[in-house]
Amino acid sequence: MAYVLQVDFDMEGPFGEEMAESFEGLAQSINEEDGFIWKIWTEDEETKQAGGIYLFDTKAHAKKYLDMHTARLKEFGIEPVRAKIFQVNDALTNINHGPVK
Amino acid sequence: MAYVLQVDFDMEGPFGEEMAESFEGLAQSINEEDGFIWKIWTEDEETKQAGGIYLFDTKAHAKKYLDMHTARLKEFGIEPVRAKIFQVNDALTNINHGPVK
Repeated sequence: MAYVLQVDFDMEGPFGEEMAESFEGLAQSINEEDGFIWKIWTEDEETKQAGGIYLFDTKAHAKKYLDMHTARLKEFGIEPVRAKIFQVNDALTNINHGPVK
Repeated sequence: MAYVLQVDFDMEGPFGEEMAESFEGLAQSINEEDGFIWKIWTEDEETKQAGGIYLFDTKAHAKKYLDMHTARLKEFGIEPVRAKIFQVNDALTNINHGPVK
């Protein structure tokens, strides 16, 4: 059973390709985090928000990452961070082809 | 380029296996929605919240589904619905194995 971490926050940019160039190193480092499975990077240039949807193996690993990431974003001048951790309902997710395995 | 719809709301239950039994028909119907790619069903029995992370092919399809789903949840007595639609940053998501294809 996996856990979803959903995160979003206000930011001035960069977005799109410039965002991808700026955060490539950060993305590489995220692959090394404890219990990390995948991340979808999210953005909305219109409303000036960005964030991510993460899958972790346990709630404890999701929480550990969120604490670290919140502190890191604060160093970038980004706060507050809106975040929630949810358990996945596997049976329903399987019906809807949700990629949690 | 895909779009993420993240939705959550307060609810009294059911959660877990009972939730899966109650919403199996609803889950089947979601596979037929325009532009739908996948859904991860999310829940937290402790905080009495549930929701979903969806992937849609366009922002318009995500918005159309959200409008319908918000009205449906209201019929179930569930409101407000907290929801956001984000564009996916493909380059960064690919580095982190995000399942958006």
